[in-house]
Amino acid sequence: VAALPDRVSARAGIVVTGTEVLTGRVADRNGPWLSERLRELGVDHAYTLVVGDRREDMDEALRFLAARGVDLIVTSGGLGPTADDLTAEVVGAFAGRPMVLDEPLEERIAEILRPLLSRWPDLDPEAIRASNRKQAVVPSGATVLEPVGTAPGLVVAVDGGGPTVVVLPGPPRELHAMWPAAVGTEAFRAAVAGAVELRQEMLRLFGIPESEIAETLRLAEDAHGLEGLEITTCLRRGEVEVVTRFSPAAAGVYERFVETVRARHADTLFSEDGRSVDQQVADELRARGLTIATAESCTGGLLAGRLTDLAGSSDYVLGGLVVYSNEAKSALAGVDPALIERVGAVSVEVAEALADGARARLGADVGVGITGIAGPFGGTPEKPVGLVCFSVAMPGDARLTRSLNLPGGRADIRDRSTTIAMHLVRRLLLAS
Amino acid sequence: VAALPDRVSARAGIVVTGTEVLTGRVADRNGPWLSERLRELGVDHAYTLVVGDRREDMDEALRFLAARGVDLIVTSGGLGPTADDLTAEVVGAFAGRPMVLDEPLEERIAEILRPLLSRWPDLDPEAIRASNRKQAVVPSGATVLEPVGTAPGLVVAVDGGGPTVVVLPGPPRELHAMWPAAVGTEAFRAAVAGAVELRQEMLRLFGIPESEIAETLRLAEDAHGLEGLEITTCLRRGEVEVVTRFSPAAAGVYERFVETVRARHADTLFSEDGRSVDQQVADELRARGLTIATAESCTGGLLAGRLTDLAGSSDYVLGGLVVYSNEAKSALAGVDPALIERVGAVSVEVAEALADGARARLGADVGVGITGIAGPFGGTPEKPVGLVCFSVAMPGDARLTRSLNLPGGRADIRDRSTTIAMHLVRRLLLAS
Repeated sequence: VAALPDRVSARAGIVVTGTEVLTGRVADRNGPWLSERLRELGVDHAYTLVVGDRREDMDEALRFLAARGVDLIVTSGGLGPTADDLTAEVVGAFAGRPMVLDEPLEERIAEILRPLLSRWPDLDPEAIRASNRKQAVVPSGATVLEPVGTAPGLVVAVDGGGPTVVVLPGPPRELHAMWPAAVGTEAFRAAVAGAVELRQEMLRLFGIPESEIAETLRLAEDAHGLEGLEITTCLRRGEVEVVTRFSPAAAGVYERFVETVRARHADTLFSEDGRSVDQQVADELRARGLTIATAESCTGGLLAGRLTDLAGSSDYVLGGLVVYSNEAKSALAGVDPALIERVGAVSVEVAEALADGARARLGADVGVGITGIAGPFGGTPEKPVGLVCFSVAMPGDARLTRSLNLPGGRADIRDRSTTIAMHLVRRLLLAS
Repeated sequence: VAALPDRVSARAGIVVTGTEVLTGRVADRNGPWLSERLRELGVDHAYTLVVGDRREDMDEALRFLAARGVDLIVTSGGLGPTADDLTAEVVGAFAGRPMVLDEPLEERIAEILRPLLSRWPDLDPEAIRASNRKQAVVPSGATVLEPVGTAPGLVVAVDGGGPTVVVLPGPPRELHAMWPAAVGTEAFRAAVAGAVELRQEMLRLFGIPESEIAETLRLAEDAHGLEGLEITTCLRRGEVEVVTRFSPAAAGVYERFVETVRARHADTLFSEDGRSVDQQVADELRARGLTIATAESCTGGLLAGRLTDLAGSSDYVLGGLVVYSNEAKSALAGVDPALIERVGAVSVEVAEALADGARARLGADVGVGITGIAGPFGGTPEKPVGLVCFSVAMPGDARLTRSLNLPGGRADIRDRSTTIAMHLVRRLLLAS
């Protein structure tokens, strides 16, 4: 909310290239990832530009950032073997450097391709080699970052001043692996010299509207000021996230702000250290040596998928049942067909039976049952699309059951349901 | 690859606001969605700028697009009740219009908030009302788009020429619902008058490297030219997508290009009409009246979740088993413990037993078994991280089984595994 007291000394912009990203066929994972890395280095990142595979658009994006006085530009994508991959060439022209074939690099790329060729024996080796020779043509004087896939990265200083350009490949795995080498180059370090590291902290709340946080911010501002804090709030998967950036000098102001939030939102503030509810559930299960299992209808396995996203989740996730049909609810989770007949498959009673069935069938300590109407079909006036019933059961008859009407489309309802289930598991674990 | 023959007559830029999007805490879903809608209207979209909740950065983004001569700017986000939501104000200043309180709008927002207040009876109604009054302050003369949540959208014509700005809320559900009203306004229609609709077609291939497509493009160019086609290729979830945009006049050139791809890639080209493998599997199951069930270990329910993403999937998805522990593999999917003991849980034999178990336990026609090592722990020299075994079984002993070494981290391996499983199901269905 308030402006930062010290201007951060190094500034950067990100250019994400690729018509597939611009038009949304591929979600951009690189802009966000690079932003986070820059922040860790104390480099202020104000812009991400997404442009298609068009020479003039990429050039304009570089010029926009240069005109804004950034010290560093990081690009992702456009280093592949096809003719629409133009980044190296555009950056070379931007930096005023001719393109030259780096022959040892060409040889190293050929070396990388050899095992690939043996995997697809029908391919023409010369055609592949020609496609990839293009990837060894680089701006003269550029620092080459060794390929992780087949595409090398580049660090290009611009003659006569102007931002240093770091050119990275589009596939996230290659970009991630190449980043440390990029940061280690002399040109990169010179460009960001003198950056002051900012702290970033996150509070997470569940179960209140964002406007309540707005009121809390006003109260905190009136009570003791928020000088030196840059606070942003957002709604994400049904949770409110409050992220604050500040220089170390403002740490005391941040502490007072956190106390205000704690006092006003004791019942909904669930994380002060940035840990997600997923991580909290995992930590709690692991610490107490408890196991968990699921029985899902409308979420179709997404909760089990989310529980097993975390590395090491096999320590506490035993498995789950996806019981989309009524027959599966009975055959797999042991739900009494007469119960389904009497109260309907979408009901708190069936959610409870599913949670019990998950526990019993998988021999788990904690069982989660979800049944609902994700839509767009299947709603009735009594049970509209968005009605979802949840139950979480633990040993000793501890149980939480909820029936909620969720807004949004099919994907929203399914995703939000997994978040609600996670919070119910967390609450029951902390209460038991 | 080649330039478009006709310059499209209307051009647009997108500005996505929100520090949470810029820094990657929230993935941007609005830029891609808006890009697709603009394309349908024949409006060329060259840039998406992502900026944080900072006044000057948002203003610079608007000015950059105006300087590039766009006819239309669409913004998303920054219409909420908190002080970091600045978009209406920044756009007002950009358009040279004072901000005014729209009292009837304020009253309508109050009306929307009433049921919300009753859901959270502890909240202070006056505080909420003050938070949301801000949302009724709009640039004078702007066309108001009625709120879907609590935030109204805006269409603002810029005095003295310059692009028309469409201001939309950040939550995708609200943005989607508001879009038709935005397109219907006089200012929007005037801004994009004369746009020529472009066709866009997509080919999808599975099981070849992107460099092979580069060679095909060169051959097609040599054989009969690609004049008037704008072709981009990208890798996505293990598939190669070839997207071509062209004006109706170049339809014949596109047809010849498709014939070249068909001839060279008969075995890997699996979709010519843009349908995803998910959709093809769904269509094939539905058309033949077959049902499907899964038994997943390393993917932990993600394949079942993916199969049930599509509306109406309850017609053919019966359910699934998430068998993370060895005990669950035996107890739920009926895998012989002695088999696991002998060949290990990650093996083609266990994958086959899982596919059979899924069929038997859920009474399904098609069964899919997946078992593998998603990492980062649990790999051995014989069975490294990334080893995943798949089996798909159908009536009459029809079966496809594969053992593959997949690259990347835990999330990549799990996601890629669901794609491979989908393709195996597709192949077996088409062969049976």
